[in-house]
Amino acid sequence: MALDTYKSVVALAGGVGGAKLADGLARLLPPGALTVIVNTGDDFRHYGLAISPDLDTVMYTLGGVANIVNGWGLEGDSQQMLGMMRQYGDDAWFGLGDKDLATHLLRTQWLEEDITLTEVTQRLSKALGIQSRILPMSDNSIPTVINTAEYGELTFQEYFVRYRWQPTVAPIVIRGESTSPIMYDGEAIMTDEGVSALQNADLIVFCPSNPMLSIDPILNAEPCRDLIENRSVPCVAVSPLIGGQAVKGPAAKLMKELGMEVSSNSIAHYYEGLIDGIVVDRADQVDADRALKVLPADILMRNVEDRARLAGEILEWMTSWTR
Amino acid sequence: MALDTYKSVVALAGGVGGAKLADGLARLLPPGALTVIVNTGDDFRHYGLAISPDLDTVMYTLGGVANIVNGWGLEGDSQQMLGMMRQYGDDAWFGLGDKDLATHLLRTQWLEEDITLTEVTQRLSKALGIQSRILPMSDNSIPTVINTAEYGELTFQEYFVRYRWQPTVAPIVIRGESTSPIMYDGEAIMTDEGVSALQNADLIVFCPSNPMLSIDPILNAEPCRDLIENRSVPCVAVSPLIGGQAVKGPAAKLMKELGMEVSSNSIAHYYEGLIDGIVVDRADQVDADRALKVLPADILMRNVEDRARLAGEILEWMTSWTR
Repeated sequence: MALDTYKSVVALAGGVGGAKLADGLARLLPPGALTVIVNTGDDFRHYGLAISPDLDTVMYTLGGVANIVNGWGLEGDSQQMLGMMRQYGDDAWFGLGDKDLATHLLRTQWLEEDITLTEVTQRLSKALGIQSRILPMSDNSIPTVINTAEYGELTFQEYFVRYRWQPTVAPIVIRGESTSPIMYDGEAIMTDEGVSALQNADLIVFCPSNPMLSIDPILNAEPCRDLIENRSVPCVAVSPLIGGQAVKGPAAKLMKELGMEVSSNSIAHYYEGLIDGIVVDRADQVDADRALKVLPADILMRNVEDRARLAGEILEWMTSWTR
Repeated sequence: MALDTYKSVVALAGGVGGAKLADGLARLLPPGALTVIVNTGDDFRHYGLAISPDLDTVMYTLGGVANIVNGWGLEGDSQQMLGMMRQYGDDAWFGLGDKDLATHLLRTQWLEEDITLTEVTQRLSKALGIQSRILPMSDNSIPTVINTAEYGELTFQEYFVRYRWQPTVAPIVIRGESTSPIMYDGEAIMTDEGVSALQNADLIVFCPSNPMLSIDPILNAEPCRDLIENRSVPCVAVSPLIGGQAVKGPAAKLMKELGMEVSSNSIAHYYEGLIDGIVVDRADQVDADRALKVLPADILMRNVEDRARLAGEILEWMTSWTR
């Protein structure tokens, strides 16, 4: 099967790392063949605005308007609004760019008009000239909540941005029973569009996003995990770790705090039953005894060329199984 | 009575011209002695934000942060958000600055928390170091609606900004009965703070704002007109016209369309029963037969010095009556 015959490739993605690989896939696949299902567990309200950080990162990246240094936010953006907020005595802890505000204002207004987050994202993506389909994992808002030793329960953005993922995640122990420190404030339901994309997928790729904080919320949106466990098409994950270090963000720190081995091997184990193969850095090892295909690759995406190169290697590899 | 013995001077103001004179008064009176009651008939929602253009113009001007060229908006502001709105296909007809957005975001959020517009304005003013009291004419939102020949009924900002006050105002005629083209979408009720300020005023000044579109909505907030008609203290108006021309905005055009003579004399007539005196440009005439005091002055405020000079002349003049 040649790349240009793919009709539907589904990528699950969180923020920056996920967006980069999704962009690589979009550049190689036929226009419209890529669907990115994006984590919305870190969505939140701030200054009354409906903010969807991962959706925006994927959208800005695929639209070619993302800030190339940060990976999130818009290129050439400013923070005049935040400066004025500080003048009003606000601590302005969440980095909202001025251009970025247009996205949040339109989304907030449209959601208030009972337009779904799926439709809102479609409208914004279309205006940015994006041909891939970017889907929120769910149209109902189910925040990811993280229990920390220092502050107790935090919403994702408090943990991630306000406290720069420095708090230690800690299970909640009730009468000797300990629960996961990562919780969901309700049960997310996948959208019909997301279900249909997974059911009709030729290939499924878990982008190099945080497995616990970005991919798990998507898998836990009903019935995502079931659909992937019972799929008939290849599914691979790309490790977010290189040499036991996270490329970006709290993945390594979090795994350690959760008592996991911090390695791509551990990521492979984490996704057991869900994936047929894993893409890891050339230097990393995965247990040979597992019935799991392994693609060693240069998984660090420094620039746009790297995105397309890595996406190409992954697509070629997966394609080779179905020939 | 010396200026520094005034405890309470009340100014009624609309936007730019009103804000300038209010600033002059604030500079001369003892700290906290000035209360500005501001038109909120042109408040509206845009992108879901609660926008109070006149309140903001007065607040930014008294806070020393207004854009000195426009008279409205913040000094050093940018329009990155609007640029992005255009990228999303929005026509971005209302000039919202990026810094300015902080004001609207906080106001919107606080109003949603059932904090009154009076309290919201107090919080914002305090953060900007303003010692004068800026009061919305009402805490209930009663939009001014303008009937036009070209577009029918328009809200104030549509008329004023979107169509740059170019449409012709036209009375609505029903079975031979013609109504005023300027209407209110309900009955505005003055706040307790506004009523109390008027009841305890030493002096009352109508700033050089549009009588029909800025001062009338304040007078029509119950029981403002009654309180002023039955006052026991001096009340003067400052004409917004010089030589039959408006310094800024649609006052002259509007008066013509309403069939009024376009002159300061006509303004004096318009405020009959409400004022003891009028401040007009040196070149302008007011009918000598009226029992109305007239102060000819240089009423054009080109800079901050002009504001204080004009305010000083008005205060000295009014003070001379009560000596």
